[in-house]
Amino acid sequence: MARLTDDIPGQRRFKVGMVGGGLGAYFASYHRAAMRLCNRFDIVAGAFSSDADKCREAGAAFSLEPDRIYLSFADMAAAESRRPDPIDAVIIVTPNHLHFEPCRLFLQAGIPVICDKPLVNDPQEAHELARLAEYNNTFFAVTYTYQGYPMVRDARSRIQAGELGDIRFMYVEYLLEWLAPGVNGLSKSLAWRGDPQKAGPTGALGDVGTHAFNMLEFLSGQRCTNLNAKLSTVVPGWGLDDTCVVQLEFEGGTDGLLWASFAAPGHRNGLRFKIVGSKASLEWCQESPETLLFTPIDGADRIYRRGQSDNAAQTLTFTSLPAGNTEGYLEALAVLYADFAEALDAGDSWRTATSVPLPDIHEGVRGVLLSQACVESSRRRAWVVFPER
Amino acid sequence: MARLTDDIPGQRRFKVGMVGGGLGAYFASYHRAAMRLCNRFDIVAGAFSSDADKCREAGAAFSLEPDRIYLSFADMAAAESRRPDPIDAVIIVTPNHLHFEPCRLFLQAGIPVICDKPLVNDPQEAHELARLAEYNNTFFAVTYTYQGYPMVRDARSRIQAGELGDIRFMYVEYLLEWLAPGVNGLSKSLAWRGDPQKAGPTGALGDVGTHAFNMLEFLSGQRCTNLNAKLSTVVPGWGLDDTCVVQLEFEGGTDGLLWASFAAPGHRNGLRFKIVGSKASLEWCQESPETLLFTPIDGADRIYRRGQSDNAAQTLTFTSLPAGNTEGYLEALAVLYADFAEALDAGDSWRTATSVPLPDIHEGVRGVLLSQACVESSRRRAWVVFPER
Amino acid sequence: MARLTDDIPGQRRFKVGMVGGGLGAYFASYHRAAMRLCNRFDIVAGAFSSDADKCREAGAAFSLEPDRIYLSFADMAAAESRRPDPIDAVIIVTPNHLHFEPCRLFLQAGIPVICDKPLVNDPQEAHELARLAEYNNTFFAVTYTYQGYPMVRDARSRIQAGELGDIRFMYVEYLLEWLAPGVNGLSKSLAWRGDPQKAGPTGALGDVGTHAFNMLEFLSGQRCTNLNAKLSTVVPGWGLDDTCVVQLEFEGGTDGLLWASFAAPGHRNGLRFKIVGSKASLEWCQESPETLLFTPIDGADRIYRRGQSDNAAQTLTFTSLPAGNTEGYLEALAVLYADFAEALDAGDSWRTATSVPLPDIHEGVRGVLLSQACVESSRRRAWVVFPER
Amino acid sequence: MARLTDDIPGQRRFKVGMVGGGLGAYFASYHRAAMRLCNRFDIVAGAFSSDADKCREAGAAFSLEPDRIYLSFADMAAAESRRPDPIDAVIIVTPNHLHFEPCRLFLQAGIPVICDKPLVNDPQEAHELARLAEYNNTFFAVTYTYQGYPMVRDARSRIQAGELGDIRFMYVEYLLEWLAPGVNGLSKSLAWRGDPQKAGPTGALGDVGTHAFNMLEFLSGQRCTNLNAKLSTVVPGWGLDDTCVVQLEFEGGTDGLLWASFAAPGHRNGLRFKIVGSKASLEWCQESPETLLFTPIDGADRIYRRGQSDNAAQTLTFTSLPAGNTEGYLEALAVLYADFAEALDAGDSWRTATSVPLPDIHEGVRGVLLSQACVESSRRRAWVVFPER
Repeated sequence: MARLTDDIPGQRRFKVGMVGGGLGAYFASYHRAAMRLCNRFDIVAGAFSSDADKCREAGAAFSLEPDRIYLSFADMAAAESRRPDPIDAVIIVTPNHLHFEPCRLFLQAGIPVICDKPLVNDPQEAHELARLAEYNNTFFAVTYTYQGYPMVRDARSRIQAGELGDIRFMYVEYLLEWLAPGVNGLSKSLAWRGDPQKAGPTGALGDVGTHAFNMLEFLSGQRCTNLNAKLSTVVPGWGLDDTCVVQLEFEGGTDGLLWASFAAPGHRNGLRFKIVGSKASLEWCQESPETLLFTPIDGADRIYRRGQSDNAAQTLTFTSLPAGNTEGYLEALAVLYADFAEALDAGDSWRTATSVPLPDIHEGVRGVLLSQACVESSRRRAWVVFPER
Repeated sequence: MARLTDDIPGQRRFKVGMVGGGLGAYFASYHRAAMRLCNRFDIVAGAFSSDADKCREAGAAFSLEPDRIYLSFADMAAAESRRPDPIDAVIIVTPNHLHFEPCRLFLQAGIPVICDKPLVNDPQEAHELARLAEYNNTFFAVTYTYQGYPMVRDARSRIQAGELGDIRFMYVEYLLEWLAPGVNGLSKSLAWRGDPQKAGPTGALGDVGTHAFNMLEFLSGQRCTNLNAKLSTVVPGWGLDDTCVVQLEFEGGTDGLLWASFAAPGHRNGLRFKIVGSKASLEWCQESPETLLFTPIDGADRIYRRGQSDNAAQTLTFTSLPAGNTEGYLEALAVLYADFAEALDAGDSWRTATSVPLPDIHEGVRGVLLSQACVESSRRRAWVVFPER
Repeated sequence: MARLTDDIPGQRRFKVGMVGGGLGAYFASYHRAAMRLCNRFDIVAGAFSSDADKCREAGAAFSLEPDRIYLSFADMAAAESRRPDPIDAVIIVTPNHLHFEPCRLFLQAGIPVICDKPLVNDPQEAHELARLAEYNNTFFAVTYTYQGYPMVRDARSRIQAGELGDIRFMYVEYLLEWLAPGVNGLSKSLAWRGDPQKAGPTGALGDVGTHAFNMLEFLSGQRCTNLNAKLSTVVPGWGLDDTCVVQLEFEGGTDGLLWASFAAPGHRNGLRFKIVGSKASLEWCQESPETLLFTPIDGADRIYRRGQSDNAAQTLTFTSLPAGNTEGYLEALAVLYADFAEALDAGDSWRTATSVPLPDIHEGVRGVLLSQACVESSRRRAWVVFPER
Repeated sequence: MARLTDDIPGQRRFKVGMVGGGLGAYFASYHRAAMRLCNRFDIVAGAFSSDADKCREAGAAFSLEPDRIYLSFADMAAAESRRPDPIDAVIIVTPNHLHFEPCRLFLQAGIPVICDKPLVNDPQEAHELARLAEYNNTFFAVTYTYQGYPMVRDARSRIQAGELGDIRFMYVEYLLEWLAPGVNGLSKSLAWRGDPQKAGPTGALGDVGTHAFNMLEFLSGQRCTNLNAKLSTVVPGWGLDDTCVVQLEFEGGTDGLLWASFAAPGHRNGLRFKIVGSKASLEWCQESPETLLFTPIDGADRIYRRGQSDNAAQTLTFTSLPAGNTEGYLEALAVLYADFAEALDAGDSWRTATSVPLPDIHEGVRGVLLSQACVESSRRRAWVVFPER
């Protein structure tokens, strides 16, 4: 029970570079905080911004050697791959529509990639990256952050161990409120999510619905085969969907349901799932991530809590603090980074090195395909097949 | 603040008869307990069972005059309508598939009807009853019990007063667990819900989905115009849907979503709604009915509680106990009966006599049409129009 | 599972009289609603008010025979005891300081008594009533309402069955808010609680602290032996304690703690206990009375819910509705009345007729002694012995 | 809104040393994780263990220069104070009974001290350290971790701004369960808490009761003047109190109540307070630290959440993540470290540099005096005065 807090002598540390993530880039700052918590990564190189001053400012703030502060990610990929001591991995935290090029270049250079979700906005690009990654078996991870919560993993263990009996229904919602007041006055870091040039073909669906969808597949190990989506825009002036409902069918016949919105007052980061089995249901909510509600038929509800002895055995290996001392969002992201380190340790066997499947490029591709399929379903008001590729 | 507990001198009491509801009929026993709480109804006649002994046993238990214990509801309708002191209303608590005939006969006899939900199983029958009821303007109420909860009414008041801003999405779920263990060993009072001869064309949808659907229309005052349903059977051997998802579109363009199931462990009587507005969301759950969760944008969640001074003004007229002393299910049903008494007091003006719209025969008809439409949508895997009649 | 709703043929009904409780007397109206729910009591006599008009008005509202509407409780005791068909019991719902005389007279007349809590304000009077009741073995019950909640009884069963292991600490709080805004504008039904002439020697302690104290003794079956109280007045102008803390010691060495207040914003009727055992703790709160929180060491919290198959066996005999359909305050009071009926059915063996010990006159006496002891302890700022009598 | 995640260029970093805290010392590992999150401290020196091998192992793990790995804290104090680049502060995380000597030596050397709570076990030692610290105005902070939670600070702001009206009662509990199973098999890191040689005169009271007590004084700004304690040992074989109740009186006349235990199943780290005011009450619980329950009289409960715009203005300066993304225990400790950095930045004006009063040596002293006073009160079963020094 000691993943993020204990100092374990002899562990390998990884030297990483960052593409994007200048000072003030808020999500990149979470990556950096999570890496500090995880305590196995050091940032030694970066192309933090297309603005040279900002790039240099960030590099200085992180005490980088001047020759590893790059003014373009292309330079960085080229230079790092030629060094005798190249970075062990690159972390790509550029805006979504700028993921493809750096991913492509670093994959081509054989450098492991950790990329923000969604992978890219276009299925063709997604497939091309997947092909590249496969070709060299290069480590590629997509930061589906919510997979890092110990109690999400506990849920997965319980589901897969059959504690719920047969899975009969899977519900997931991902509700946020930030768009509810309207499009005026949105910060730049939010506004781009309504711009098809940057966000891709979908809004709420692509941004948070993909997390929700990934969660169901991660928990159940089942793949979606068909879906029926309605993408709606409820906030005047918004350029993409801000609300969506997707009926899902999974292999084996399980039904599912996904509801996502940017405009649901009272929800700050409201990812919540309920998995219904033949013996019990299981519920978890991101806003109170330390507990799992397990409800058997005709019996007492049980509130499982991270760090207790009735956690799934595996769960305890992901926890850092004793029960009662809350772990939160940064700790979850750090758990993901700890997995990345474990996988990087394993070299070519990285795919099977972690006890929980790593969110690899194929998971990234499925997110892109989900958007594509939902757009088609919603336009035709019909069920569609989930694209095989 | 004194609806069910205070003894108000001078209030008219109503003499009522009951069709169905012999001893041990559990839902009928709730009606009787609610009537005792409400304290304005006395059972003076009944055709409690098609089994003469059971009928007489019940009549004796309620201390009825022997000549008002009827061995058939047809006799009862005929005899009561001929009496100088007929019953003021009849309460029909037979199994669903036996609602039509007694409803028809009592309506024809001009006797006010209180009928369990669902009205009937067949749209033609529903329309015929509606026609009959309209013809004589006879009082007809369907016991959509959940409308009786003060905090449901508080929600309705807040929604219609604009406290949520514009309504942007309406979610409702109605989950139960009793079917989850399987079809073996089901009590008779549950098993008929899977028999199309008795339950009609739908299972979970017709039984509880109609409550959920009615709730959204009651709260919002908006009518559903289109829907896209998937009816599923997840429990082996069950004869109808036990799980359903319905995407809804309401007049004015609001989207909605309904999820119902008989096979969701952890839910005993889990009716729950969340109404999403442009300014706030509102959430209520039948299993903890005394509170309403009101969540504005970027501010403290508020838990409104029945009986406090910040309830909607109307709400306080429906409450009987001070805040902190729980009112439950029987109290909610008794509130509905108090409304019925208020409406019966008003004679011909019964339709407009209550401060909250009475769940009349048209609400009953909509429930029947919902089943019909969902069956068609699910079969065709397509959106369908909600039938106008 | 059918205590308050089913109509059980052949059960004896009891004819009762009421002392106090004119129209508008709110607590008396709860007694009447609970009796209607319970469905075994009929009010046939009463001395509802010292004001003759009010008395007659109430009698008429309850459809009493004119000769059983009494203008004084003394007349009532005398007349009823002479009748061939006297009342089976009397319910005394006068203000606290007017309990003694009617209790005394009806006990002397050999008529069973159901008396509101607290029994009386003075220990000598308490002892005299106890002596009278003992002398004839007359049924005497004190309405410690909160003992009627099924989940309180479930807690008691679990504690006494050893599910918590050894009891190590008992905590109880009873917090209300009504006095917090100050003494101005208090309704008469609240204001008397600050008047020593009416309320007796203590305020919050006597009014609600006694409920809390009784709860610990009821749950554990242990008796308090020593206490250390501080009675405080935090609201300017209030004539008695409005806040109190009492450290408790029970036979066998268990410690306990009681906190009560009339001036705690956010608490409407906030009776809450937590019993700490060597294996698990148990928590219940009157404002959400349907569940029990059972927390074992280092394991999932369990939320037990009324009406489920893992309730203590006895609990199910006290419940009326299926789990998920809330039972509330009136149902709890009706459970107590159902116990009274069961005990009255048993005649001389009334003391041992119910499956849960009836709150008899000795429990009433202990409430009076508690006030006496706390006043002394608080005045002396010292531990005192709980008086043996 | 960016305390722990953003990388702020130009901030001064502090070089610190550690006394105690070898690898595997779990609380020390939290300090280190919190420092990494805070991102303003670097460990450059240490006397991690009295075992030379362990000390060197830890030093190596933290990549220390060999000459700053000290085999005794005395050497470290001497050597560091002679260096041209001494450490900016020392963090003392030895067992409680080994705080005094290192504190004394570093204070004498003029080196700022951050010391785990409790300060020491003996009042004389406490006073001596206070005298030393005062003499040179040396920075001295005691890690009352729970003061670091943003919503605790939000509570403090609201209380001091008068949002609750006048404070009328303060309740705090601190319950844990680890001792409930008994003394056999306790880990060394827990067992010492029952050994008077190491833990000092009190067990649960000194270990967690002091946190609880400090919390009330921190929140209210009021000082305790009198107390009445009962220290109990409920777990057979435990050498000190494992359960305690303390009645408190604060200057100005407010009453308070403290309950602490090591043996309360269901509580992992259960620090919880409720402050009762004349207008509203306020409640917070360490196990769900992101929210504050604010309950006004006769109105909706409000759940304030960290990071929202209705937080007290100051609160937002302590938060790092947007609302909805949980901050936990490490983040709270890191907030405290951020304060320490802010204070160290201020040099001689360190006492007034932070927007929230720093938990300085006087707070540490009060914790020691609390233990002393409670022992006396419990022994005499009497109220005692809180020692002025």
